[in-house]
Amino acid sequence: MNNYKKLNVNQSARIELHDELQLTGAEISINFLPAGASVPFVHSHKQNEEIYAILEGCGKTVINGETVSLSAGDWLRISPSANRQFFTSENKGLKYICIQVKENSLEGYTQSDAVIIE
Amino acid sequence: MNNYKKLNVNQSARIELHDELQLTGAEISINFLPAGASVPFVHSHKQNEEIYAILEGCGKTVINGETVSLSAGDWLRISPSANRQFFTSENKGLKYICIQVKENSLEGYTQSDAVIIE
Repeated sequence: MNNYKKLNVNQSARIELHDELQLTGAEISINFLPAGASVPFVHSHKQNEEIYAILEGCGKTVINGETVSLSAGDWLRISPSANRQFFTSENKGLKYICIQVKENSLEGYTQSDAVIIE
Repeated sequence: MNNYKKLNVNQSARIELHDELQLTGAEISINFLPAGASVPFVHSHKQNEEIYAILEGCGKTVINGETVSLSAGDWLRISPSANRQFFTSENKGLKYICIQVKENSLEGYTQSDAVIIE
């Protein structure tokens, strides 16, 4: 596997990056949900923590029956077993990143995992 | 631990989300590097794959001596052992997300990890 892989994402359709970037520790998708729409199902996960970043627009998610508002700049962690569904507002869609990682998989990070070369 | 945690990030200074969002599978930072600047060191990682998303601006990274240009919309995976350093252009800074995950930690994802409730 190459030391790095780069991709420019300039499209406005959903894209999944795992295969494109040869990711081994995460799946990442970039998603677009039009105004007045919802993800058409409620879901949870077996192992994966999900982290959402709202890039544009506004809407809400319902997590185990609790409504959480969403707007640009929001970052959200959801535990694997929580039931979740996403909805946009009537007037604005959502552009968001979804990151899947295995719960409790991270060991060291930043200073405890980095090696400073020079 | 709560089923979810939300944070609105609207600042223009570096922020690390691991503690704020109680992440267990990733560290995520949002970074701002002004025009004409660089991260002041070369670094690699012991265990962690890094994934960068360029949100605004342009610049370059040097990975094991190879120069890779960066502009808004670029996504980049870098293997743990690769030496890397980031630079902005003379005229534009960079706003970017850095995601650290443990290499090879992901097992199932999306359809193989999701449970559809209804």
